[in-house]
Formats: sequence, C-alpha cells, structure tokens
Amino acid sequence: MEPKKRTEISTLGQFGLIDLLTREFPVQQASTLKGIGDDAAVITPPAGEEVLCTTDSFYEGVDFDLTYYPLKHLGYKVVTAGVSDLLAMNARPSQITVSLGVSAKLPVEALQDLYAGIAFACKELEIDLVGGDTRASMTGLVITVTVLGHAPQKEIVYRSGARLHDLICITGNLGAAYMGLHLLEREKRVLADVKNPEPQFKGYEYLLEKYLKPRPRMDIIEVLAEEKIVPTAMIDITDGLASDLMQICKSSKCGARIYLDRIPIAQQTTALSEEMHLDPVVAALNGGEDYELLFTVPLALQEQVMRLGLVDVIGHITAESTGAYLVTPDGQEIKLKAQGFPEEA
Amino acid sequence: MEPKKRTEISTLGQFGLIDLLTREFPVQQASTLKGIGDDAAVITPPAGEEVLCTTDSFYEGVDFDLTYYPLKHLGYKVVTAGVSDLLAMNARPSQITVSLGVSAKLPVEALQDLYAGIAFACKELEIDLVGGDTRASMTGLVITVTVLGHAPQKEIVYRSGARLHDLICITGNLGAAYMGLHLLEREKRVLADVKNPEPQFKGYEYLLEKYLKPRPRMDIIEVLAEEKIVPTAMIDITDGLASDLMQICKSSKCGARIYLDRIPIAQQTTALSEEMHLDPVVAALNGGEDYELLFTVPLALQEQVMRLGLVDVIGHITAESTGAYLVTPDGQEIKLKAQGFPEEA
Repeated sequence: MEPKKRTEISTLGQFGLIDLLTREFPVQQASTLKGIGDDAAVITPPAGEEVLCTTDSFYEGVDFDLTYYPLKHLGYKVVTAGVSDLLAMNARPSQITVSLGVSAKLPVEALQDLYAGIAFACKELEIDLVGGDTRASMTGLVITVTVLGHAPQKEIVYRSGARLHDLICITGNLGAAYMGLHLLEREKRVLADVKNPEPQFKGYEYLLEKYLKPRPRMDIIEVLAEEKIVPTAMIDITDGLASDLMQICKSSKCGARIYLDRIPIAQQTTALSEEMHLDPVVAALNGGEDYELLFTVPLALQEQVMRLGLVDVIGHITAESTGAYLVTPDGQEIKLKAQGFPEEA
Repeated sequence: MEPKKRTEISTLGQFGLIDLLTREFPVQQASTLKGIGDDAAVITPPAGEEVLCTTDSFYEGVDFDLTYYPLKHLGYKVVTAGVSDLLAMNARPSQITVSLGVSAKLPVEALQDLYAGIAFACKELEIDLVGGDTRASMTGLVITVTVLGHAPQKEIVYRSGARLHDLICITGNLGAAYMGLHLLEREKRVLADVKNPEPQFKGYEYLLEKYLKPRPRMDIIEVLAEEKIVPTAMIDITDGLASDLMQICKSSKCGARIYLDRIPIAQQTTALSEEMHLDPVVAALNGGEDYELLFTVPLALQEQVMRLGLVDVIGHITAESTGAYLVTPDGQEIKLKAQGFPEEA
C-alpha cells in the first residue's frame, strides 16, 4: 500500500486547520443565518416551532478503536448518533457543531477523512455544520457533537408519554452493530501478530455496516409524519433494547412486556452469534448502538402501524407495578436489566 | 487535612451519577420547555428572536491542571467561557449543556465539586442546565460546554461589522489571567518536592481570581442595551488581544492601530511581570483567557462610550491595506501577530 501523505497539524495553525476542514460545508438550511466563523452560530427556527438540542461525546479507546475504525466512517457515525437523539423526539435536525480534541499523532489528512464523513452525513441529511472548535488533546481523539433541530410543540415526543396498553414498536433489527463490533475485535486479536493481515469478514458485511456506518432513521420520522402518527413515547436504541425500554418505563411510570420471538434479529446477527457461541437475544437486548427507534403508540393504531412494513410490534405497556419483562415462547418471564456505567477498556 | 470521602463512580452507575450531579439545577428560564432527562432539550426562544449556539471544550493537561485548579472553580470557568462567546454576539445566554469525559481516578465527590461550580455560575447568570452526557474517558477529564441563547436579529453583533475610523474598545484589563497561570505554575515547580507546600500568593489574589474564576461580562451587554449602543463588531478575549483583534480585522476586512499606553493592565499584572522578568504588554497581547469584550463602535459614539466608565478606547480601525499594528509612545509601529495552534504540554 502506498504510504499516504502526512501533513503535521502544527504546520497549519489552529485557524488554518479549521478553514481547511470546514471548506466543504455549504449552507443547506434556510434557518442557518450564520454558520462557522464567529463566536456563535445564529439560527432562525421556523415560526411557531420549538428548538431542540442534544450533545454526545465519543472517546478514542472507549467508544471507538482507530486500529480498525475508518475515520471517514467515524465522522458519519458521530453525526448519526447526534441526529438519532433528535429523531427520537420526533424532531427534524437542522444544524450541528463538532468539537474535536486531537493529539499530534494524527496528521491533517486523518482529520480530513473524518470531516469527509461528517460532510457526507450532513449532505445526506441536509443539515449544516455551524460551529465547533479544534483543540489539542493530551491523548486520544475526542469528538463532541451538538445537534440542533426543530419541531412544532404538539409533535414533540418525550419518553414520558407511554400509556397502559400502548403497543411497543421497534424499527429495523437489533444486535447487528454489537456483533459487528465483536467481529472487528476478533479479527484484531487474531491478526495482532500477522504481518499482512487479511481479516475474514465475508458473509458479515451487513454487521460491519451497522457498526461502522449506521444510518439515522430519518425515513421513519418522515413516514410517521405522512401517516399523521405521533408516538406516545420514543427513544433511540443506544444502550440496548432492555436499557432503553426501561428509560421509557421509568419516565412514563409504567411496566412493559416484550416477546422474545418478536424481537427482530438479522440473519447475519444470528449466524455470527452461533459461530461465536453467543446468544443473539443478549446482543439485541444489551448490545446497543443500533440507532433504531423504539416507540409506543395507542392500541387503536395497531393496523396502521403494521401496514407501514417498517416497524415490528414487540410488546405492550403494562401497569408500573408489574415491572418490565421479556416473555419467552414458553411463557417464562425474564426481568429486564439496564446496562451499567460503561467499563473502561 | 482530613481526607475527603471517596465514592467510586462505578458504585452509582451512569444514570445514578447523572441524577446525583444534576439534582441542584432548578429551571429558571421560561424558555426551557424540557431540560435534563430526555433524548434532547426543548427550548422556546422569545418570539421574533434568533437562537444562538456555541461549543467549547476543555482538556485536562492542556487547558487546566488539576494539581492546582479547584474543581469548583473549573466548573464556574467552563460556564464563563461558553457564555462569554454568546455575549460576544451581543446575545443573552439562556441554556447550557455539559458533556463530561471522566477517568475512574476521579471520585464522585470531585464531580460534585465541579457541578457545584457549574450550578453556582448557572444561578448567577440565570441560565438552565438542560442536558449533556457523562462518559468514561481513557485518560484525563474532558469538559464540553454548549451554550444556547437568543437575541433580536438587529442587535446581533458579528466580527465582520467594523468600519473605517470605528473606535476599538476593551472592557476590564488584560493579561491578568495569564499572569495568574504563571504564578500557579511557578509555585507548582518550586513546591514539587516539598512535603507540606505553602504556596506564596500574597498580593496576587486578583491574578488568581482572574485565571481561576473569571466572570463573563454580562454587565457590559446589559449596559450597552440600556444605552442603546450596538457595537459594529465584537469578540471576547480568549486567545489574547492581538489574535482576537486580528479576527475582527480579517472578518471585517480592515486594519487597526492600537496604542500601547492605552492598553489597560492591572497593577498586580505589572508587579508580577516585573518580578518574573516578563513584559506585561506581551501578557496583555498574547496571554488570553481574559474573557473581556473587545468591540468597535462608530467614532460618533466616543463620548457616550467613554462616559460609561467601563470601557477603554485603545485605538481605531484603519484601511485593510494598512495592516494591524501596535503603536508605541514614541510612534514606532509593531506588527500584531496571532497565536498559533496551542502546543501540547
């Protein structure tokens, strides 16, 4: 492989670096009055709509491993993660800021790759990069993403609105990102001492895609709007189905029953789980980083929701006193457990 | 000294930790519809006003040294830094999010100190903490602050509005924070091997205060509003007078002359500079982190601005082709230079 060109960050200076990285970000949103280049961004939300704001950070060595995470994909993923939080409020993302902490070990070209991924996601989602800063970090790469968006007040969906007998719905499938991570970690271990490593990913491309380059479910928010469905509660799957459903239960003061045989799991997730002697249901419940949307709707909308063809109904909301349980096909009830504080790697 | 109680972060879990840290943050702003506790915060800006947003990150070992930086002060300072960016747009801050990357070496009590400082600043400035996340970091403490605010469109001040012959104004005094940092670094070196260190700060308390607990100049924004003065351009002093003035010159496509003998420098700054054989003017020009406001107004407002008693007029805007220079009392012109990318410590 031809060695890539390596430009040291110090040769550009802080302002030169920011100018270079943010060159490919045209303003796409009418609501962006002032983007990059001043002390703050200035935004005009659509008249009568509320402004939503969310922040997420990603740490090298904790949230990603640069030995196998392509920087362009990482740029795409951090946008997905931020945008996904806004979608989970049933809101439209419109602006983003990105703060980078970079160690001198990364050349300018690496940061350009990262920003190429951010630019690709911004273009696809029609959102504007409107600010951020780039600082020296003592150690690894740190990326903080803030996403701004807007929504009419009556369409905003909180975690707290789930009601007794509401249906629990999930988009896509679960556990694939987690198995993609396991696959990458396995190949890293196996190939640690190999000179020209050739990792074996054949048959598991979907898992890698779900882990390395997940797409936020903007399509779902658009379909729900077209169908005039406003969920009663919603959250995106970042910590795993169990933990995220328990957030809805806690906020909505309710219980839940979800059915094991209704949890959508992709064929590749099941195949790799079997190969690695893991339980695919555990991957689905506790894996996280799926960026799928978990939401509740009134029972009366069952037919309409199922007709969408984009959503699985996996259970229903129960009284708070009954707790949150997974029901197996033989009728056994297993108490759901939330994930703890992420362990340090 | 009695050893403080030490609770490991792992004993609380991620959600327990966030609950504990954010307990003391009552909602103060009518514009905060939803603060902490969902996927995103929801904000209603005042009708007809624009929304402003800015993000800043702070890295242990680069931006602060925990061997001498009290965490409570650090919490206060990160709020100041974020709010100061919004004030520099002539806007009112209203909400803040705080993202923390914490290493396991810090106990819960340390994070509580940090949040006590954040809470103190929020109360003083009447802004709401509306979100953020707390994650494991592989190494040092990382703090990212996003500040939201609002302003009527015609009152927003950009860096780009300075015009020929405008007056260059500065609040407070410059270089004090930089000398405060030097003092702390000196005592750290001197006392590195001393068992019960007793640092010598007598006579320099103001410098420590300016470095460790700077206050954002909200008072200036309020006075300018009362006086119906809208600056033509504004920036806050974070990188030093030279670098920040050059930002205005670059954005406004103009030059500048500032006069050495008009640069406000506190008596303690001069005294410590002399003691340490440093030039106080260099501290003022390149020190940074003063969080004072640098702004320009039309020449016609000279009397009104000077009557405020809060501002020094230090120079004027010139044609772009003439460059940006510091003029010494004997008429010599010294070209201003911007700071480079912060070196890694």
